[in-house]
Amino acid sequence: MSETDVQMRAKSTRGRVFEDFSLGEVIEHATPRTIGEGDVSLYHALTGNRFTLQVSDPFARDVGYHAAPIDDLLVFNIVFGQSVPEISRNAVANLGYAEVDFLAQLYEGETVRARSEVIGLKETSSGETGVVYVRTEGLDHRGAVILRFVRWVMVPTRAGAAAKGKSGAVQDAEPALARQVAPLTVPRHRLNKFWSDRDTGSPHRWEDYETGEKIDHLDGVTIEEAEHMMATRLYHNDSRPHFDGHAMKSTPFGRRIVYGGHVISIARALTHNGLANACIVSAIHGGRHANPTFAGDTLYAWTEIVEKQSLDRRDDIGALRLRTTATKNTPCADFPRLPTEKGGKKDAAGEAIVLELDYTVIVPRRA
Amino acid sequence: MSETDVQMRAKSTRGRVFEDFSLGEVIEHATPRTIGEGDVSLYHALTGNRFTLQVSDPFARDVGYHAAPIDDLLVFNIVFGQSVPEISRNAVANLGYAEVDFLAQLYEGETVRARSEVIGLKETSSGETGVVYVRTEGLDHRGAVILRFVRWVMVPTRAGAAAKGKSGAVQDAEPALARQVAPLTVPRHRLNKFWSDRDTGSPHRWEDYETGEKIDHLDGVTIEEAEHMMATRLYHNDSRPHFDGHAMKSTPFGRRIVYGGHVISIARALTHNGLANACIVSAIHGGRHANPTFAGDTLYAWTEIVEKQSLDRRDDIGALRLRTTATKNTPCADFPRLPTEKGGKKDAAGEAIVLELDYTVIVPRRA
Amino acid sequence: MSETDVQMRAKSTRGRVFEDFSLGEVIEHATPRTIGEGDVSLYHALTGNRFTLQVSDPFARDVGYHAAPIDDLLVFNIVFGQSVPEISRNAVANLGYAEVDFLAQLYEGETVRARSEVIGLKETSSGETGVVYVRTEGLDHRGAVILRFVRWVMVPTRAGAAAKGKSGAVQDAEPALARQVAPLTVPRHRLNKFWSDRDTGSPHRWEDYETGEKIDHLDGVTIEEAEHMMATRLYHNDSRPHFDGHAMKSTPFGRRIVYGGHVISIARALTHNGLANACIVSAIHGGRHANPTFAGDTLYAWTEIVEKQSLDRRDDIGALRLRTTATKNTPCADFPRLPTEKGGKKDAAGEAIVLELDYTVIVPRRA
Repeated sequence: MSETDVQMRAKSTRGRVFEDFSLGEVIEHATPRTIGEGDVSLYHALTGNRFTLQVSDPFARDVGYHAAPIDDLLVFNIVFGQSVPEISRNAVANLGYAEVDFLAQLYEGETVRARSEVIGLKETSSGETGVVYVRTEGLDHRGAVILRFVRWVMVPTRAGAAAKGKSGAVQDAEPALARQVAPLTVPRHRLNKFWSDRDTGSPHRWEDYETGEKIDHLDGVTIEEAEHMMATRLYHNDSRPHFDGHAMKSTPFGRRIVYGGHVISIARALTHNGLANACIVSAIHGGRHANPTFAGDTLYAWTEIVEKQSLDRRDDIGALRLRTTATKNTPCADFPRLPTEKGGKKDAAGEAIVLELDYTVIVPRRA
Repeated sequence: MSETDVQMRAKSTRGRVFEDFSLGEVIEHATPRTIGEGDVSLYHALTGNRFTLQVSDPFARDVGYHAAPIDDLLVFNIVFGQSVPEISRNAVANLGYAEVDFLAQLYEGETVRARSEVIGLKETSSGETGVVYVRTEGLDHRGAVILRFVRWVMVPTRAGAAAKGKSGAVQDAEPALARQVAPLTVPRHRLNKFWSDRDTGSPHRWEDYETGEKIDHLDGVTIEEAEHMMATRLYHNDSRPHFDGHAMKSTPFGRRIVYGGHVISIARALTHNGLANACIVSAIHGGRHANPTFAGDTLYAWTEIVEKQSLDRRDDIGALRLRTTATKNTPCADFPRLPTEKGGKKDAAGEAIVLELDYTVIVPRRA
Repeated sequence: MSETDVQMRAKSTRGRVFEDFSLGEVIEHATPRTIGEGDVSLYHALTGNRFTLQVSDPFARDVGYHAAPIDDLLVFNIVFGQSVPEISRNAVANLGYAEVDFLAQLYEGETVRARSEVIGLKETSSGETGVVYVRTEGLDHRGAVILRFVRWVMVPTRAGAAAKGKSGAVQDAEPALARQVAPLTVPRHRLNKFWSDRDTGSPHRWEDYETGEKIDHLDGVTIEEAEHMMATRLYHNDSRPHFDGHAMKSTPFGRRIVYGGHVISIARALTHNGLANACIVSAIHGGRHANPTFAGDTLYAWTEIVEKQSLDRRDDIGALRLRTTATKNTPCADFPRLPTEKGGKKDAAGEAIVLELDYTVIVPRRA
């Protein structure tokens, strides 16, 4: 290997391998990002999100914000994207999310940056890969944490299978993850005094939803390569499988894979038809990308109301814990579900499911 | 049908059927929308519109506006989109437009909302569908009407063919529609004192156009799925045929249909080559989508100057009534036209025509 | 030819032919353009550019700007686009660039316009085409030149081959072009006092790069029709080969060609992986589009550090002259190069190369 090659490797990078992470390490991510109304417009045009609170300044002011806040999931995707170069640029798979806590709203013109702590490391049995758990925080320009989440990704080991169990000083450490975010972060101001169902397009308030209720969101949306790549670039997420069609031809997938966060945003947008008053995502307790999504797939979604929660000292709002299931090329009229994790093989429904998201939204109560 | 299914249907919707409309009913549409410069940039990038008045703040100020106003057709598409959930979400076809009156300019940061009045209802002979006529208004945040138009759509009946003539209390009522918008709304300030042909790129003022003149706009633009879907989402138009490729496979079209408003915007952009000083659309008197447009089609357009109108007490501007014809995959060097409505069968030219738009633009006169 | 046809041709245009240019002629281009944050967001989403200086207001302020400046290449593409209607709308080929000098930063809300001087004319041997050399300037709203470049394009002659050597009064005049821009324009303020490598994501300062060093940027990005057309429309570049898929079917290419400026922007974005501190492009000395790029192609890039330049009285920054080579569907691990111009036939590597760009970036030195 020549001197020049060494320099080359030192300057550009494919991202970290398993041995590059150490438990407790804190990584300050690059590219703080000022979010503007151009980003917001693109997010809406690429995903179809149009919850009224995030698109109408007058509505937002009427219910107590100083302007339309930036969509919670746009902020999530941006902070996630900021963490990609050090955490998952080299990832084989994004395995899951937990403890996603939306602590504060961001507004146009504000800047967000990210840092991650490595909270778990586990080599897989083959020795070829390991799972890295990180807790990532999004910080505003004052350094206040506005978003926090845990995710875990599978990355290759440098040593490969040959060195099974020998990936250096790393000892296995799987973090204990909460099954739900608690307590929930909710807006401090009273929301329902001037909340307009005319403006949101839905007469359904918190009182109208029931535990166990199932909502088929009916609509389908086909995803194009240009769309998911633009969305993923909007988030500064430069993970190769989403962009490099030439290299992906040589993988078992044979083509680019849609970034999971785009699937989440599309699913969230689909829930508007049935949950238009659920303008605020308070927390994501867990998420699984059960199957990959490709350009050309049409996504559908349905939601089960898993739990209705009243909130202490708040008669203006309530929380709904939701499980939204997104499918590809399969309408959700019969409410397909993944087999339970301990259960048997994937059935046809299981093959069609691309996402299960366990999260909590805030919904105004009647005044 | 279980209780849960009933609830499900109550929360999400495919949109109204013919029996859900009643004559004289006023529908306040949801999702008031603050229009920002991100929306404007996207509109230009998706459609190619670049009339100087709408892209240059200094030019707009020089000719008497306080900044570059938002494109008339972007506002039209947004107000149209706001009306889709209640009017045409379930539509079989968008049949036509009339009396489209642009009453005031909007600026970035302003918010628009929409309401519609049902002004006509007519069951079709099969009993399976009915035509709904609405007059839709776009309102600014002060409640002033800034845009008004009539459109009519074909929607299914709930009863279906079996109940022909029995679709409830509805009695047929076809509204009388004006063949032209009059009087025309025109800018109040004098426009031509500082109007710069250098900046618009055209030396052709109102005086230079003649009744009967035909302009081939020469350029062609191929439409992609990602583009028309992004544009349609930008307008919050969630009508299924534009997005759900999976469901559209089972229709006679076999694929997604491009939203007609995107075709209008593309056609308008094409007219820039030959009409670059026609920066202001004053009214659309009528419009017909003669054939569907699909991704992969290349659109061309030509325009006939149908009428030159001088305007009372205005020697700074004049009006041109235009008929712009857009075709697919067929250049317009020989000025193809639809056969007259009373005429015979569609010929080859007729198959290629996707739009005929009858509208009036304001063009500065020489100073 | 009827009177109407004559009028039609007078109003719309396919652009100029060789005989329409005269040496020394100055052309004031149309459509001054206010650049907003929507344009910037789109640029980032379409190209992947994310150099920290251009995406973070706080970072930009820390290092001495009053906000994040607009990407140099976005400004270049916009000024280029403004010149297209008069210079290259009718071009057979964009042959090259030289003397591209970035004289000042633009900020959101500012307006740019363009003018070109014809500095060279040369009929080609067949008589069917001629090469037009123009020096184009971008001007801000105060009329200050903020960008200057030379480009040359091949356009058809009106006379065609039949009139070889007879294309009117035109005499051949090839301009002498500088092989490099000198002196370089650099920011006046000291840059490195608060420059944060944490924020840019790279620890590599000017001192760390060496003449002759080669950097493989590793990443690949596949280009879609929707993306390059949106980008090209964003720049108001309406050159037919990028948009008219129907007409392009009848050309030897058989399909639309990606605008070369989009290829440059993608290549620049790819260099982020290895050159993240090179936030400022000072000059482009030369550029060649060696092969056309089509939708579906995956672009890769590598860069050679051609020269390290220290700058007079500046110990805070240095310059790096770079040659970035972009390829299609061919990773750059073995650093492919074009054969020298005087050299033999294109080899396989030559077929894969779509761009060679010779340019200078400003990189902070260690504090």
